[in-house]
Amino acid sequence: MKLQAKCLGIESGGKPVVTLSIEDAGELGVRSGERIRLRSNGREISAIVNIVTKSVKAGIVGVYDEVSKSLSIKENDTIEVEPAHFPASLQHIRNKLRRRKLNYEEILEIVKDAVAGNLSEVEMAAFVIALEQQGLDLDEATSLTVAMVETGQHLEIGKGPICDKHSIGGVPGDKTTLLVVPIVAAAGLIIPKTSSRAITSAAGSADRAEVLMPVTLGVEEMKDVVEKTNGCFAWGGSLHLAPADDVFVQVEYPLSIDPMLLPSIMAKKRAVHANFLALDIPTGRGTKVKTIGDANLLAKDFIELGRRIDIKTQCIISYGEQPIGHAIGPALEAREALRALQGGAVPDLIDKAVHLCGLLFEMTGKGDGRLALEILKSGKAEKKMREIITQQGGNPNIQPDDIEIGRYSVDIKAEKSGIVLWLDNNFLVEIARAAGAPKDKKAGVLLHKKIGEKVEKGEPILEIYSEKATKLGLAEKILQEEKPFGVGDRMEMLIREVKEIPITKKAFILER
Amino acid sequence: MKLQAKCLGIESGGKPVVTLSIEDAGELGVRSGERIRLRSNGREISAIVNIVTKSVKAGIVGVYDEVSKSLSIKENDTIEVEPAHFPASLQHIRNKLRRRKLNYEEILEIVKDAVAGNLSEVEMAAFVIALEQQGLDLDEATSLTVAMVETGQHLEIGKGPICDKHSIGGVPGDKTTLLVVPIVAAAGLIIPKTSSRAITSAAGSADRAEVLMPVTLGVEEMKDVVEKTNGCFAWGGSLHLAPADDVFVQVEYPLSIDPMLLPSIMAKKRAVHANFLALDIPTGRGTKVKTIGDANLLAKDFIELGRRIDIKTQCIISYGEQPIGHAIGPALEAREALRALQGGAVPDLIDKAVHLCGLLFEMTGKGDGRLALEILKSGKAEKKMREIITQQGGNPNIQPDDIEIGRYSVDIKAEKSGIVLWLDNNFLVEIARAAGAPKDKKAGVLLHKKIGEKVEKGEPILEIYSEKATKLGLAEKILQEEKPFGVGDRMEMLIREVKEIPITKKAFILER
Repeated sequence: MKLQAKCLGIESGGKPVVTLSIEDAGELGVRSGERIRLRSNGREISAIVNIVTKSVKAGIVGVYDEVSKSLSIKENDTIEVEPAHFPASLQHIRNKLRRRKLNYEEILEIVKDAVAGNLSEVEMAAFVIALEQQGLDLDEATSLTVAMVETGQHLEIGKGPICDKHSIGGVPGDKTTLLVVPIVAAAGLIIPKTSSRAITSAAGSADRAEVLMPVTLGVEEMKDVVEKTNGCFAWGGSLHLAPADDVFVQVEYPLSIDPMLLPSIMAKKRAVHANFLALDIPTGRGTKVKTIGDANLLAKDFIELGRRIDIKTQCIISYGEQPIGHAIGPALEAREALRALQGGAVPDLIDKAVHLCGLLFEMTGKGDGRLALEILKSGKAEKKMREIITQQGGNPNIQPDDIEIGRYSVDIKAEKSGIVLWLDNNFLVEIARAAGAPKDKKAGVLLHKKIGEKVEKGEPILEIYSEKATKLGLAEKILQEEKPFGVGDRMEMLIREVKEIPITKKAFILER
Repeated sequence: MKLQAKCLGIESGGKPVVTLSIEDAGELGVRSGERIRLRSNGREISAIVNIVTKSVKAGIVGVYDEVSKSLSIKENDTIEVEPAHFPASLQHIRNKLRRRKLNYEEILEIVKDAVAGNLSEVEMAAFVIALEQQGLDLDEATSLTVAMVETGQHLEIGKGPICDKHSIGGVPGDKTTLLVVPIVAAAGLIIPKTSSRAITSAAGSADRAEVLMPVTLGVEEMKDVVEKTNGCFAWGGSLHLAPADDVFVQVEYPLSIDPMLLPSIMAKKRAVHANFLALDIPTGRGTKVKTIGDANLLAKDFIELGRRIDIKTQCIISYGEQPIGHAIGPALEAREALRALQGGAVPDLIDKAVHLCGLLFEMTGKGDGRLALEILKSGKAEKKMREIITQQGGNPNIQPDDIEIGRYSVDIKAEKSGIVLWLDNNFLVEIARAAGAPKDKKAGVLLHKKIGEKVEKGEPILEIYSEKATKLGLAEKILQEEKPFGVGDRMEMLIREVKEIPITKKAFILER
């Protein structure tokens, strides 16, 4: 059936939707919520049908923004419409629900259909949940990785070897990437770093880097920066390196599940043709991986998956029970990283960056962690950072004090003297987010004390920054309700009394 | 935030959707696809946000039909709008994903949120898939049954005891209900029968009964019919006895899973306050339950669940490897059932009906199967059927030949002489559906021969009926491709050769 397009100027939130008249829907035999196949301008997608129940003339198909974009439809264009059948890959998803192992071709078909918008949310949820409930074995993880690469863009850099760094996330204030990239690039190695924005955290590496320079680069721009400087800071979202991941994450997030952790990370490394990968697994209470035993198992899987797709992978298991450095929130963190590059003392941040660079230097035969420390101390890393900032269009002379932070702030003071016994990552993130981070880059939390430090009664332990007084108030209220730190002479025995079924609000960390 | 309603006159297919201007969405901090909370006319629901990207003035909320219906919204009504939080029941769903057993209160909260439209499709899919992957134990099945009853309407009949009959479905042409209801009612027992329409089959009991009388009854109308005649044929869909089931089935259908089989059936029996239930489990190749072992296990679960909710349940395990009687499709089946009530010989149909009535007569102390046969043979069942037809507003004098069947038909003839060795239920259903059933009541398949009968070369084995020549052609094409019967002297040894990974299109039976 041929219908005339009417652009509705409505965004459905990612899902392809069209409206049909009652007559046309009847003729096609589809009901609201069912799918039809659309063909126009040589392209084809399937879309969800909404039916216009007030009287409209037949022959018109109303298209939402997602559809007009993906088929390049303009007002009054002709669209060929037919009933859609269940996509073939749905059979593979059903087989997975029946506990069958899927082969590469089957997984590729699922991923292709997911990226093309041919699978409904329910169908994608079924795939993700089945993987989560049954677990992926390494064969399936490899297939999924390769399928994600296959359905995305690639970055071909003329030179090599190519290094990469990744943290599985979960520890706040982790601005290590802002040190690792210039150190590695200054050593003459290639590091085309792509990062994500925060999903559940207070800042992603792309958010932090964006305080210093534009990070929304196309593949060609990124290539250009890397060719000139050996490194870059690019936001992964605009590069479409593994677009399937962006689709599946929409389903994973509301359910707080993350079965595709390995493939989604490794696919993005494969897409930039990385040869060497240094992977950080922050471990402990308040992070994604709670025990060293689990961290070892995860490291084993990453190393083995890397081996299968030709990325030599080594990991550090790092202490994650408190934030890295003192700053949480994009601008505060960018400032702290820049200070560290200029020789400032941020011991845990530098410690972690040096170990990660050390792995890359050892794998490539460049040296070890001492070389990293030397590059940092000599100012070569800062110089390299300013080269990258220049190439990406930022202010090459930027100084830490030029970086603006929230206009409103409040000091939180110790109610008694003692030692800081613990800090709670999840509550600190919740407070920083309530203050406006990551969307509001200037918002966040600045720690004045970290675990083991002495604090006097009335001395400030931390400071909250925000651009809005109401958000600052909300953040402070959350802090009063859910104490993010403990001060005392010794750890107290009682963690909590449980006298009835507890309603636990477990923080979920989903970062890519 | 208070916004003014604009009724869009668009049906989204069950999901509550509203549009917001870019300004209002920004103010609320929601993006397309996210949810907001709406309050109007003393009611409250959550809805999915679509954002109008072309210039519209702020202050307007565009409401789709589903929203205007459930909040009784008229043009220009004021709607109070705020950001929605994840519903509390989502935490229970996440716990289920983590393999925790859910208690009654938790399940009730999930079911309430599902019925109220507070759970997204992904969230409902997660619940259904977790149940399917992990299995429900009988405690959870009981909780789910009671929660479904709790969130739906009830039927209170002044007299008792109340009998009910159910088939878990899967065998085509199963018009047994059209005999059981009048036989049981004629014996003086109360049987307020509710039935469903076909989902994956060629006819549901509601579709068959509707050929003879209106079946879309409200609770009061149904009560009235039962009080006057002891029985009725009501379509369950309009009664809202277990509305949660209608919501979950939308997710189960595309995934071909049915983890809520027991609760969804038993909830509807509990909602009519049934005391005695005769349950039919058709068993064998081409039905839902393949082996007698599985049928026994399922019967055990039904009996035990019945015991827990005070419904005395007994089951028959019946032969299901070919259709019941000769007719498949609403009108053809109604005609066959009416003939059986008038003394016509449909041995397998009568056999099955008599066994089911026998269970109910034994449980209530009325007698046994012989009483059922006597009521049928004496014409009392036909008389009772006409009473029910009268009360529900059908033609009380209707005769089998008055029932119209498809104008177009084609005879399918045997290509060789022999014995009918097998009939394929799934292909027969597929052919009847291709011909137009169940939507087109006059379409279907009429078998001239059944398993074990002799057929001569050139003699008709079956006939396809349709109201449209194109559909008849399509149905015949499917029949030629996928042979639905086997004729020969003996069963041949080879079923199929499998030389590469087979792509199996497994028929899925989802009937309630």
